[in-house]
Amino acid sequence: MNIDMIRAAAKRLEGHALRTPLLNSGFLDEISGRRVWIKPECLQHTGSFKFRGAYSALSALDPETRAKGVIAFSSGNHAQGVALAAKMHGTSAVIVMPSDAPQLKIRNTQAYGGEVILYDRDTESRDEIGERLGAERGLTLIKPFDEPQVIAGQGTCGLEIATDANALGIREADVIVCCGGGGLTAGIALALEADAPTLRARTAEPQHFDDVARSLLAGKIQRNSATSGSICDAIVTPQPGDLTWPVINRLCGAGLVVSDDEALGAMAQAFLRLKLVAEPGGAVALAAALFRRDQIQGDDVIVVISGGNVDPAMFTRAVERV
Amino acid sequence: MNIDMIRAAAKRLEGHALRTPLLNSGFLDEISGRRVWIKPECLQHTGSFKFRGAYSALSALDPETRAKGVIAFSSGNHAQGVALAAKMHGTSAVIVMPSDAPQLKIRNTQAYGGEVILYDRDTESRDEIGERLGAERGLTLIKPFDEPQVIAGQGTCGLEIATDANALGIREADVIVCCGGGGLTAGIALALEADAPTLRARTAEPQHFDDVARSLLAGKIQRNSATSGSICDAIVTPQPGDLTWPVINRLCGAGLVVSDDEALGAMAQAFLRLKLVAEPGGAVALAAALFRRDQIQGDDVIVVISGGNVDPAMFTRAVERV
Repeated sequence: MNIDMIRAAAKRLEGHALRTPLLNSGFLDEISGRRVWIKPECLQHTGSFKFRGAYSALSALDPETRAKGVIAFSSGNHAQGVALAAKMHGTSAVIVMPSDAPQLKIRNTQAYGGEVILYDRDTESRDEIGERLGAERGLTLIKPFDEPQVIAGQGTCGLEIATDANALGIREADVIVCCGGGGLTAGIALALEADAPTLRARTAEPQHFDDVARSLLAGKIQRNSATSGSICDAIVTPQPGDLTWPVINRLCGAGLVVSDDEALGAMAQAFLRLKLVAEPGGAVALAAALFRRDQIQGDDVIVVISGGNVDPAMFTRAVERV
Repeated sequence: MNIDMIRAAAKRLEGHALRTPLLNSGFLDEISGRRVWIKPECLQHTGSFKFRGAYSALSALDPETRAKGVIAFSSGNHAQGVALAAKMHGTSAVIVMPSDAPQLKIRNTQAYGGEVILYDRDTESRDEIGERLGAERGLTLIKPFDEPQVIAGQGTCGLEIATDANALGIREADVIVCCGGGGLTAGIALALEADAPTLRARTAEPQHFDDVARSLLAGKIQRNSATSGSICDAIVTPQPGDLTWPVINRLCGAGLVVSDDEALGAMAQAFLRLKLVAEPGGAVALAAALFRRDQIQGDDVIVVISGGNVDPAMFTRAVERV
């Protein structure tokens, strides 16, 4: 993993991924006690940053391999990203999804042309299912985060943050990233190290699924005891990845942790002040910026809203707090 | 009104207004039967395009006049735009608002530093109140649409559409604009005439408040019989403006009209497919693109989502349709 791979991914993504802006609202600045800058990856194709990594990985395959099709396992956002990226490359995608994934994500993955296979998150291993199916059908596995070209794709989000922060004159700031397996965080951290070294990536996670925050404290990989039960389904993973962890450990500040309730509160603020639809797991970084102000330094903070694929009932639950 | 004023406004707005991107979703393309390109002005500061015109007008005043303060009358989006633009210029704003304006818009206008004065939409004339207060306190009236520098500011949205459409290779397309008094439509139409003459502006209005569509049919200004009673509060005006009408009449295609129900349906699609919060009046152009496909020509259509300042209850009503 290095910055050259991220720059190469940015070239491949040009004209295919959306170049998202940085948004701001004075109302959020007041809550956070500093300028809050929002990178709205919920506006990205398929409604999350995952499209970047998926498109990067698909576009990096040699054409013959790609033509045989790909396979991915995902709770929903990586699934949609891979399905659409496969469609855009004229190839097929099998997507292995947990049976408790939001209905919206399952339906959308199918609508993007993905063949969805459901599994039980508590009793089956998605890795085993993925590897077996991949071998049987000659498919290439596109891992959700522990894959260099996926991390490189997510890193393009960091290149854009660095460019815009430099243009805005933002010097010292935390860049808070919603963190599951750590692909987006690691990619952004590497991009910032190269292009905006005074900005520092930090992870945000939901309570009880704070494996990265605890790993950073311990200095070595820690696991979550539970693997389901959070409303932040998009970022619930057992532990940081083997490739993402060393990058996160080397470059990131202390991890931030928020409650499900605070994630819903951040969704309400995104609705009210930014006119953005965020999903719970996509709102934890904003929640950290708004509700952990004492754990953040500096006059500016940059926040990635990483996804917006939320069922209407969950969204209604959030906006009723306004 | 001419293109030079729009270009000058664009220079004044640079670094102050948000440069919004063009968004796309394959799901919306399917409904419309063509590529649908979204200009998300709900992401603009204050949650609507009105900030552009307000900032343009404030920045065009000579400093002494501006320092005495400004006054505006508005159902809410112009109110917020003027209040924030005044704050950014270090001056004060009095905002005359109808008493039935959405609570959110009233509260926000106050939060942006505006002094809000409420009036009864059915029994009082906002023009008279505005002019009286303006004279008493020496304030400059910033009209919501029939004011050249406001139209010029809204036109900057059209310059951006022209640039992005040209870059995307979009040649022939309707550009559908949510239309109340016609400031945004006129500004965009003038910008397109100069920078993308094969694109054609068209208005979208709510049923029963389709004064512009009927005016275009008749070839002269027609009035609405009612002035309230639509959920599309942002774009309910008695008739097209004296300045905006000749531009609209000269440059726009036939007006499109949608029901309140279709506006809510478009809000649901914006939530689901674009991760954007649109208000009813800000969603009528998208509703026209999705639900009036037989009245639109070409392989592409460009749609302005003009605002996102909607109360949670109304938004919930829309997303429950998903």
